[in-house]
Amino acid sequence: MRANLLGDLAEVLPPEGLITDADVLEAHRRDQATWTSAGVPHVLARPSSTSEVQGVLRVASAHRVPVVARGAGSGLSGGANALDGCIVLSLTRMNRILEIDRRGLFAVVQPGVINAALKTAVAEQGLWYAPDPASWEFSTIGGNLATNAGGLCCVKYGVTGDAALGLEVVLAAGSVLRTGGRTVKNVAGYDLTRLFVGSEGTLGVITEATLRLRPRPPPATTLVASFPTLVGAGAAVTEIMASTRPSLLELMDRATVRAVEAIRPMGLDMDAAALLLARSDAGGEQGVAECARMAAACEASGATFVAQSADEAEGELLLGARRFAYPALEKQGTTLLDDVGVPLSRIADLLSAVERIAEQRGVLIGTFGHAGDGNMHPTLVFDRNDPEAVARAQAAFEDILVVVGELGGTITGEHGVGVLKRAYLSRQLGSEATRVHLAIKASLDPLGILNPGKML
Amino acid sequence: MRANLLGDLAEVLPPEGLITDADVLEAHRRDQATWTSAGVPHVLARPSSTSEVQGVLRVASAHRVPVVARGAGSGLSGGANALDGCIVLSLTRMNRILEIDRRGLFAVVQPGVINAALKTAVAEQGLWYAPDPASWEFSTIGGNLATNAGGLCCVKYGVTGDAALGLEVVLAAGSVLRTGGRTVKNVAGYDLTRLFVGSEGTLGVITEATLRLRPRPPPATTLVASFPTLVGAGAAVTEIMASTRPSLLELMDRATVRAVEAIRPMGLDMDAAALLLARSDAGGEQGVAECARMAAACEASGATFVAQSADEAEGELLLGARRFAYPALEKQGTTLLDDVGVPLSRIADLLSAVERIAEQRGVLIGTFGHAGDGNMHPTLVFDRNDPEAVARAQAAFEDILVVVGELGGTITGEHGVGVLKRAYLSRQLGSEATRVHLAIKASLDPLGILNPGKML
Repeated sequence: MRANLLGDLAEVLPPEGLITDADVLEAHRRDQATWTSAGVPHVLARPSSTSEVQGVLRVASAHRVPVVARGAGSGLSGGANALDGCIVLSLTRMNRILEIDRRGLFAVVQPGVINAALKTAVAEQGLWYAPDPASWEFSTIGGNLATNAGGLCCVKYGVTGDAALGLEVVLAAGSVLRTGGRTVKNVAGYDLTRLFVGSEGTLGVITEATLRLRPRPPPATTLVASFPTLVGAGAAVTEIMASTRPSLLELMDRATVRAVEAIRPMGLDMDAAALLLARSDAGGEQGVAECARMAAACEASGATFVAQSADEAEGELLLGARRFAYPALEKQGTTLLDDVGVPLSRIADLLSAVERIAEQRGVLIGTFGHAGDGNMHPTLVFDRNDPEAVARAQAAFEDILVVVGELGGTITGEHGVGVLKRAYLSRQLGSEATRVHLAIKASLDPLGILNPGKML
Repeated sequence: MRANLLGDLAEVLPPEGLITDADVLEAHRRDQATWTSAGVPHVLARPSSTSEVQGVLRVASAHRVPVVARGAGSGLSGGANALDGCIVLSLTRMNRILEIDRRGLFAVVQPGVINAALKTAVAEQGLWYAPDPASWEFSTIGGNLATNAGGLCCVKYGVTGDAALGLEVVLAAGSVLRTGGRTVKNVAGYDLTRLFVGSEGTLGVITEATLRLRPRPPPATTLVASFPTLVGAGAAVTEIMASTRPSLLELMDRATVRAVEAIRPMGLDMDAAALLLARSDAGGEQGVAECARMAAACEASGATFVAQSADEAEGELLLGARRFAYPALEKQGTTLLDDVGVPLSRIADLLSAVERIAEQRGVLIGTFGHAGDGNMHPTLVFDRNDPEAVARAQAAFEDILVVVGELGGTITGEHGVGVLKRAYLSRQLGSEATRVHLAIKASLDPLGILNPGKML
């Protein structure tokens, strides 16, 4: 049966696209959610074309073998983790930018294109591909689409899905589906593009994407503000969002600031309950004026320190602290990076609850994230060799998800469900939405070969 | 059987919610797509709550009677047209704004709320509900969602779907589904919100929506430019979109300008091939500067006249001409309002093709629309009492849809498929996407009672 599988795959893939070397398979077992379980794949398929992907899925269907699609493996929920005996389908060889239409403001790319490569290529034509997940320097567009990845600029420019105009998708049985198109507005039929975006490889394999480009925004003015209370920081976020259009609005709590300062001292306020970083790219004097309005909102909410700079290098330095948040926390122990969202008005409630949970469970939790979207990353830090500490971290992780539900939030804002949040999804969705998910899954993947055991 | 249907409906609806009066039924037979066919409903149901909608759908399922949901009936594709013997389900009595969360930047509304009523209510709290279809003064949020309605401000702020955070939907069998939530970012499961938005009542009945609010943008600066050639106007649109972020970018061709001037003389350039209207709401000097950049783009593309004004009243006057485009064309004869989209780089090609078709078919076609989104409304004007003229208009209508396909565009950008474009949808989607549409439809509405014969 298995030998047969390899033989059949060899008929649809060239030798370099079909790998069974144990070391290579080991390297393709999981994504960056180290805390999740992963199986051992039977084979790694590395197609170089849509028709090769079709071939792999036809063979997988015939053998009823699970297929786990993956890009760079930088996911944070275990969505790309292998299952025992599965085919891992790596799209990294399909890494060509097929078209950049400067006048039409779109690009057509294969799924293995690195986000940064696309940004660079379109920048050469004076344009901008907005979505900027933290992994943008190494993650693939296919992975960004499969998880509907977020990032820092979403607060003004939207998530990956907002940039997706159309897709080519290979379905479970090997047929090719085209969704959407090359127009910004399109209501011809159901929004299948959005159905596949964020579906984590459970409905089909994205083999091409048409992505929206934008003009590059003007240089940004940057603001930093520190708050003696979480309530004050939350109030400032609310006020900023209700009165301005920041191009970035990030938060770091005290534990995160201290972790950053411990490794890369920058003179950040280590006694503040929280630090806000905001940007306006309104441009010129308007950018400065918008930043001034944000500063006023911070001061009205009790900020003890506010500073702004139109100097790009200085702004990048401040942003560097935020970008360093997770690496800094990682230096303190094993980390479990969470990703939750709450309504904008509940940010202070979330932060306070996380602080209480950290204390009650005796776990260090550093919280940072995209405050302007209500999307935060409480990061649990513990000693993975201490079973008791692991148990406490696990309990705190679950406490946070319960609180998020109580606050009318979501168990995942941008990282996806994958393996990490699978047990919690149906509680959020409710029984009817769960049933609808399963009905849609069954209608598109009746044999259940596409990334089974993930998300649903 | 029919008596039985009415009796069963009477058990789930109060007398005022169940109407069989022939005149009232006649008034609920169709939407504003006067050119499409419509049946005669058996009964009009006017529920006042989600549970009454559930009751109606349970009865409809039991009797296997089609249900056509509708709001204000201002649709332009026949999506809300009745079928013989159907239940027309009017949501207009469910017109309460349930919640406006100023700090959370969202509103929760019933589907029968008029777009303008929501705009007014949130404006009182200093906020803005962005989506602005031409029908905003009388169309309902439910209808806006069901068609994923566009409008003038989409070019910067997105379509109705971009404002939808979550929905309550009653499914065909009467169960209640909740999609999305109250957060801006949410990747917990498939994007069911986007699946129902734009599904034209074929997958479920939207009974509640959580909508994103924004701060009100600064006052706009307005630009008008006239072009001696369509190619020049198209080039200006491309250049403006590639270098600025207009909050509005509209176009009127010569036939439209002449129709407007014929009824409401405003001194518009009647010899220009096309007029562009653009706005920047970047605010203050930045708005003026952005408009100046747009003006430069127009001049570089051959505009013969360019003027800008930061005066709001003057801006509104110019915008009034654009808003009057369709009413003005309506005065010239029977109109068939089309709605097509092309990639931004193909606007001039579309306009030239429409001009050629008008000449070849001997039909007056005035084209106007949302140039910044590549979404145009070629409007055919003819004498509906002249069968030969009707045939030529019909031929021209089909010619335009063929051209749109050749230009990589879409047969509908914002009005929907409904009855008007149903025959053309599968050609655009292709066989696999059509099959997937039918599979999803079958998984959610296995009896096919929800708006059958529309879209699919």
